[in-house]
Amino acid sequence: MVVDSQVSQKSGHMTLNYAIIGTGALGGFYGGLMARSGLDVHFLFHSDFEHVVQHGLRVDSKLGDFYLPKVQAYRDVRDMPSVDCVIVGLKSTQNHLLATLLPPLMREDTVVLVLQNGLHVEQATRDVVGEGRVAGGCCFLCSNKVGPGHIRHLDYGRIVFGPYRGLDDSESGPPSDRLQAIQQDLVNAGIDGQLTDDLTTARWRKLMWNIPFNGLSVILNASTDAIMKDPHSRNLARRVSEEVRQTACKCGSAIEPEFVDWVVDHTDEMVPYDSSMRLDFKQGRPIEVEAIYGNAMRAALRRGVETPILTSLYQQLHFLAAHRPAHQKDA
Amino acid sequence: MVVDSQVSQKSGHMTLNYAIIGTGALGGFYGGLMARSGLDVHFLFHSDFEHVVQHGLRVDSKLGDFYLPKVQAYRDVRDMPSVDCVIVGLKSTQNHLLATLLPPLMREDTVVLVLQNGLHVEQATRDVVGEGRVAGGCCFLCSNKVGPGHIRHLDYGRIVFGPYRGLDDSESGPPSDRLQAIQQDLVNAGIDGQLTDDLTTARWRKLMWNIPFNGLSVILNASTDAIMKDPHSRNLARRVSEEVRQTACKCGSAIEPEFVDWVVDHTDEMVPYDSSMRLDFKQGRPIEVEAIYGNAMRAALRRGVETPILTSLYQQLHFLAAHRPAHQKDA
Repeated sequence: MVVDSQVSQKSGHMTLNYAIIGTGALGGFYGGLMARSGLDVHFLFHSDFEHVVQHGLRVDSKLGDFYLPKVQAYRDVRDMPSVDCVIVGLKSTQNHLLATLLPPLMREDTVVLVLQNGLHVEQATRDVVGEGRVAGGCCFLCSNKVGPGHIRHLDYGRIVFGPYRGLDDSESGPPSDRLQAIQQDLVNAGIDGQLTDDLTTARWRKLMWNIPFNGLSVILNASTDAIMKDPHSRNLARRVSEEVRQTACKCGSAIEPEFVDWVVDHTDEMVPYDSSMRLDFKQGRPIEVEAIYGNAMRAALRRGVETPILTSLYQQLHFLAAHRPAHQKDA
Repeated sequence: MVVDSQVSQKSGHMTLNYAIIGTGALGGFYGGLMARSGLDVHFLFHSDFEHVVQHGLRVDSKLGDFYLPKVQAYRDVRDMPSVDCVIVGLKSTQNHLLATLLPPLMREDTVVLVLQNGLHVEQATRDVVGEGRVAGGCCFLCSNKVGPGHIRHLDYGRIVFGPYRGLDDSESGPPSDRLQAIQQDLVNAGIDGQLTDDLTTARWRKLMWNIPFNGLSVILNASTDAIMKDPHSRNLARRVSEEVRQTACKCGSAIEPEFVDWVVDHTDEMVPYDSSMRLDFKQGRPIEVEAIYGNAMRAALRRGVETPILTSLYQQLHFLAAHRPAHQKDA
């Protein structure tokens, strides 16, 4: 592995080794930063494998562009070593693959960190690897894959992660010293990794952005800045975010009313951005309706909470995903 | 005027004379039937004037096709006689024209029958002609203009009409004997005209169809049958209709829960149909967002009633209308 000579190890702590499952806009960006920092990182690629073996991994980033001419690349998990930490960067629409992808990478003490959008998205991983081994992380990241082995990081990058405790928050998570070691590795790699003991509330906060802006960008066929500029869609986005906040509160995650303002203000400051859902939709890939909308809706339903706007967006998105022009249909 | 020889006068009552303002899918269909029955009907045309003068008015109808080689056609209201009854078939998006179009047609006892979609759409007419002279009618009609002077009637046709009593139902409407005479003329013309003393409730019932199906057909870019076939959009349409029903009830129009089933069942039975709003949208014409959605929303707001889904559709439609491709923009 080639380590970028501009970056040195920032602490003497015993580093972990990592597998990145799903090396796209997200896995490629974070995994790239981690490999650049000298960590032992193993990347699973799909269609980009040949290209990356020949040409390496390129990341254009607001934090500084970098290029890794050689990365530890694989196209089959059976060729990969077991690791201390597996980072899942797949879209949740690929979660049916986890039963095949995860077991070869697991040791007794392996922790799986699920960096997916949505609520309770860790449950699919939990079902494969069992209780006490799964963490979830919310990524505040604007990043796109712009070509094979080529990631463009536009803005942000924070990861807020913590133990996953099951659908009803009753299970035990992974050992906290292991999570702290992961955090240390992230921070040393230049990633703003923050540990939380309340993953569910962190996920609801993230949904206060994802639910309005992912969905409306598809339904209105608009970028975030177009949504923010029009007074009607701007107010709609705010109302959706507020409905998510109230739902979170009724589901046990107390989020202050001012957080809606934070969401709106920060979207104003964002560079014009196509949400990942809009990119998926335009490129004919499956969209994460169930992870983001369906799971939030069902969490509310279990507690008898009504979600009129959320449910409407969910139903509109399902219709639109099923009725795309033929060349855009989900596989 | 040429009277179709197949139709005879069905009653001996003293008929009224009529002006049709806006001879499109709606005004052309009803006005055509009325002229065919022998009534004295004066039609205002816009772009179709020359064509109709030369080629007449053609109606392809489920009730039997018919053709009127000569109709009393005008392109300027100042050439038209004053009449007993003006029928407004313009879209509500053209209501700014009423101050010019109506006065030349009015006599002391003229009644204006507003056949527009929405709630309180009569108010614009009321503001021009004053209290006690305005009736409103809900048309249950599937009809399109398919060419100059050429209407295609697909299904239905009932008009439920009654006195307009102002935004707070406190004003007096037109004399009931005049409304009964209009009804008689409609029925003699083969039109299922029904008088109601509760126009507001009739309007809310109609909105229980218009609000889900006009809006969703634009937002989802889908015909009514596609909306009904997909389980998500079907359930969404039902939920929207139910929200409108509950809003109507809270605004003083008691509508039974079973009416939602009636709306859904009757939409199932409809021939595949592009709603008028979808046609307007696709053809770059203004859409009736304010008459149908805005006025219902504001009626709810005046009574402190929340309408989360209705308001969301309103905001989505405004965004979409403002962001159509350049060649589709509203004038």
